[in-house]
Amino acid sequence: MGSLSMALIDFLSWSHLNCNCTKGGFGSYLFGMSERIASLSWDANDFKNPKLGWIIAFLFVVSFLGVFSVVPLQKIMIIDFKLAYPSGTATAHLINGFHTPQGAKLAKKQVKALGKFFSLGFLRGFFNWIYSATDECGFQAFPSLGLKAYQNRFYFDFSAIYIGVGMICPYIINISVLIGGILSWGLMWPLIENKEGDWYKKDLGQSNLRGIQGYRVFIAIAMILGDGLYNMCKVLSHSMLGLFNGFLTEEREIVLPVERQETPLPPQLSFDDQRRTQLFLKDQIPTWFAVGGYVAVATVSIATLPHIFHQLKWYYILVIYLIAPSLAFCNAYGCGLTDWSLASTYGKLAIFTIGAWAGNSHGGVLVLLAACGVMMNIVHTASDLMLDFKTGYLTLASPRAMFVSQVIGTTMGCVISPCVFWIFYKAYPDLGKRGSEYPAPYAIMYRNMAILGVEGFLQLPKNCLLLCYILFGSAILINLIKDLLGKRGRFVPLPMAMAIPFYKGPYFAIDMCVGSLILFVWEKINKAKADAFGQAVASGLICGDGIWTLPAAILALAGVKPPICMKFLSRATNARVDAFLGN
Amino acid sequence: MGSLSMALIDFLSWSHLNCNCTKGGFGSYLFGMSERIASLSWDANDFKNPKLGWIIAFLFVVSFLGVFSVVPLQKIMIIDFKLAYPSGTATAHLINGFHTPQGAKLAKKQVKALGKFFSLGFLRGFFNWIYSATDECGFQAFPSLGLKAYQNRFYFDFSAIYIGVGMICPYIINISVLIGGILSWGLMWPLIENKEGDWYKKDLGQSNLRGIQGYRVFIAIAMILGDGLYNMCKVLSHSMLGLFNGFLTEEREIVLPVERQETPLPPQLSFDDQRRTQLFLKDQIPTWFAVGGYVAVATVSIATLPHIFHQLKWYYILVIYLIAPSLAFCNAYGCGLTDWSLASTYGKLAIFTIGAWAGNSHGGVLVLLAACGVMMNIVHTASDLMLDFKTGYLTLASPRAMFVSQVIGTTMGCVISPCVFWIFYKAYPDLGKRGSEYPAPYAIMYRNMAILGVEGFLQLPKNCLLLCYILFGSAILINLIKDLLGKRGRFVPLPMAMAIPFYKGPYFAIDMCVGSLILFVWEKINKAKADAFGQAVASGLICGDGIWTLPAAILALAGVKPPICMKFLSRATNARVDAFLGN
Repeated sequence: MGSLSMALIDFLSWSHLNCNCTKGGFGSYLFGMSERIASLSWDANDFKNPKLGWIIAFLFVVSFLGVFSVVPLQKIMIIDFKLAYPSGTATAHLINGFHTPQGAKLAKKQVKALGKFFSLGFLRGFFNWIYSATDECGFQAFPSLGLKAYQNRFYFDFSAIYIGVGMICPYIINISVLIGGILSWGLMWPLIENKEGDWYKKDLGQSNLRGIQGYRVFIAIAMILGDGLYNMCKVLSHSMLGLFNGFLTEEREIVLPVERQETPLPPQLSFDDQRRTQLFLKDQIPTWFAVGGYVAVATVSIATLPHIFHQLKWYYILVIYLIAPSLAFCNAYGCGLTDWSLASTYGKLAIFTIGAWAGNSHGGVLVLLAACGVMMNIVHTASDLMLDFKTGYLTLASPRAMFVSQVIGTTMGCVISPCVFWIFYKAYPDLGKRGSEYPAPYAIMYRNMAILGVEGFLQLPKNCLLLCYILFGSAILINLIKDLLGKRGRFVPLPMAMAIPFYKGPYFAIDMCVGSLILFVWEKINKAKADAFGQAVASGLICGDGIWTLPAAILALAGVKPPICMKFLSRATNARVDAFLGN
Repeated sequence: MGSLSMALIDFLSWSHLNCNCTKGGFGSYLFGMSERIASLSWDANDFKNPKLGWIIAFLFVVSFLGVFSVVPLQKIMIIDFKLAYPSGTATAHLINGFHTPQGAKLAKKQVKALGKFFSLGFLRGFFNWIYSATDECGFQAFPSLGLKAYQNRFYFDFSAIYIGVGMICPYIINISVLIGGILSWGLMWPLIENKEGDWYKKDLGQSNLRGIQGYRVFIAIAMILGDGLYNMCKVLSHSMLGLFNGFLTEEREIVLPVERQETPLPPQLSFDDQRRTQLFLKDQIPTWFAVGGYVAVATVSIATLPHIFHQLKWYYILVIYLIAPSLAFCNAYGCGLTDWSLASTYGKLAIFTIGAWAGNSHGGVLVLLAACGVMMNIVHTASDLMLDFKTGYLTLASPRAMFVSQVIGTTMGCVISPCVFWIFYKAYPDLGKRGSEYPAPYAIMYRNMAILGVEGFLQLPKNCLLLCYILFGSAILINLIKDLLGKRGRFVPLPMAMAIPFYKGPYFAIDMCVGSLILFVWEKINKAKADAFGQAVASGLICGDGIWTLPAAILALAGVKPPICMKFLSRATNARVDAFLGN
């Protein structure tokens, strides 16, 4: 594949990283440590102001762990589990579009379809931007199923991205997500909210972890962990079995045996897929290298981090690094199914587990924020780079080249991102202040979460842990049933997919089901055409709508804000507003 | 054609009549005469309360004039001018869809396409309804080109009806409408509004005829009259020439010579069109019958009306009936081009001309309201029945059968409508009161207009009449140029089409141009398919969106109101509203 493709992949990785920086990094836990944010929170004493030096050092010792942890997951997720990674797939289609073989008529038509829906998605993004003066405006707040349903996040938000994702994901995933959404936002949360005042204090608001949000976050994570750990154990037991067999047949080469076990390619693979798999396996990064790299970086990290954050003990970090790969597995698996990365949720989990362990005595807010950052970095990188590996797999890129480019990209990110943040931090002394141009709400939120976390799981509302155990167990049970049913198990929903809307809300499930429905109807009308063009159309929608974030970011930097708010009011409220505006 | 088609045509006529009743009849001039409305207006002395008897008598002597005046126009508008009458064409496609010839594959596919877009249009209508709690909500208030443009009525309102109309109308019509919109709302009105305080008093508001609305209404009507009268003179001169030639060749049968002149069918007509034209001409209603009927009804009317309204002199009515056919011609012509009937505008013209003539001395408000009603009835019926004749032409219905069914329909309307109104009037003593459930704003508006009209054109703002003369002249000039250029004249815009947005605003021009654009692109991509399915798709959109008015009316009667308002606010206003709502 040409240099253009790699540039595109890099660009997309960069935009992912960029996103991570604003939402999941500098905007949240790192900035949450600063004095500016501390002065806005309940606990103003414990702070560490940002300095270019320690931030770059911190990122260097943390970020590469993610890169190494991804490598062994590659083959499991992409070849064995055949996960969709919808936006990775979409990017691959886009890139392949630039390299249409000469004279291939169908391919040209596919590229045309992709181009058309790319423009459509992009226009939707642009159009949506114009009308979204605030987060409560525009299509992302369109109560398309009524205002009552909207309050419980049941609405169709016309997102081209998730319609496309729905077209790429298998039907069972979309249905699982919808079932999960109905179970949680349609049943469990309303029931729990009826216990307001009994199970948790009144008037805590929607986003307080001591209130309803606590149930949402931790029940979701429990279910995800149940599913993820079950699948990881399955993979590991297969591997052990393979390893054992391998020793018996006296194989020498050190590779994760799971690779061996399934290497004979299934005969039903298309020519394209066979070629992809061969190339992918041929040029793989040896597992010993990945494991070695992980251990090496972890060692350096364990030695360095306590010097950056004095309260952070080396054994906390060790434990995080021991647990992280399993969580990375879970997140990469969930992201492969539904395209959602729940890195911030794993970050919250880290805050509360380390908080429960270290507690008030040994830690404090800074330790928990640092732990959160470490965890988020690894878990996010795992899911994020996996998307790129999926793209690479589909575009016949060499896994080694991908790895090298990711290492380069991460290195650049570790230097460039702090510098950009530093410029902002110095240029805007108001950065983070309420009511200022850049209020950094996430930073305050993360800090408050850490303050909460100091007391660990005790802070969670009543019955929350009990429900977590139940849903953790259910996830394992459902998986067991799925496996025991054999072929018929494909009709059993996936707990991982069910859990994502627990936290996010079911609106994207509705988008995905619309995508499914479109594909389903299309297949009924013209199966050949749907098979030939479905993926191209979906990819166009995803990439077009997604790429709008780039001009939107540039506009935001230039200070251009969306001019109009498309607002949805009930009849009664509208009458009040009209009276207020004097119409 | 079966009974179903006639039923459908009747239903559509009925819904038109119904619309006329609420917006253009009982809701406006008739109710405007009542004491209830008089007490709300500036002049409370001059009133005539509704009574079932005189209303039915009034409708009987007035409504049939329209039916007779349409007959001679039929052949001119439909065969000679080949006008589109988009919604008539759409209805015809719908009806033809029920009668697909067995085994005709293309026709079946067309019906399928029609059905699909019918559903789409209907869904759009339903969807739009949900979000339009008031007139300022929903898609009809979507500032798709920005808030500034929206204030000057430049916006795309996603109307399936006018997208469909645009697909049926020739390109030059759509472009003319857009040019007219830009000229008026983009140039003239803003310039005139700059003269506020100089040319007319300040703070009169948008809908006051002494202010900017006066320019809009009368300049539009001047241009329409210029175009309409030019074309009528052209037709008449052709007729005279034909009549003269006819006498020379000693023809006996009395038919309007214009029919003779072009009877040899142009060879380029399709087989379908040839058959339609033959059937249409074969079964025509003789002109002597129509003229005789018109004269007879007019005589009865002139004798009767002064007994109903004592101040209404017989010579006023005579003059109205002499002028009305020309205006009916203009309105039928304009409606054939753009699907807009401007009956209410002609009603305003009648108020001001009769007002200028009769003045305060002989007339007063009641006379003007009655004159307005008479004029609106004739002019509206002319355009409205012409739509049905177009439908009949395309569905091979006999013109005689159509005429008979229209006579029956009108008779029913003259009895049923007043009864329905009577029930409402008696059931709701609040009917017409401000703030009540049925405030009847049009009735008050018409009454105030008549009060204004008592002083005639003198009430119009400064330079309004001058501008009217200029645009009347321009309309004739443009037509002359168009005719002189011969074939190249087809690129000259049509003044009639240009004038419609003068009054209505250019938003529907944008819808129509979108329709044009869709058809244009479609023809570029696949001409054969666009030719085969374009009309079916357009018809589906028009009928589907249009038919939603029926369930909407039922819902309104049942007291069900749209639950949500989709509101568009500027960034700044939105911040104020959010603060007000306490978010």
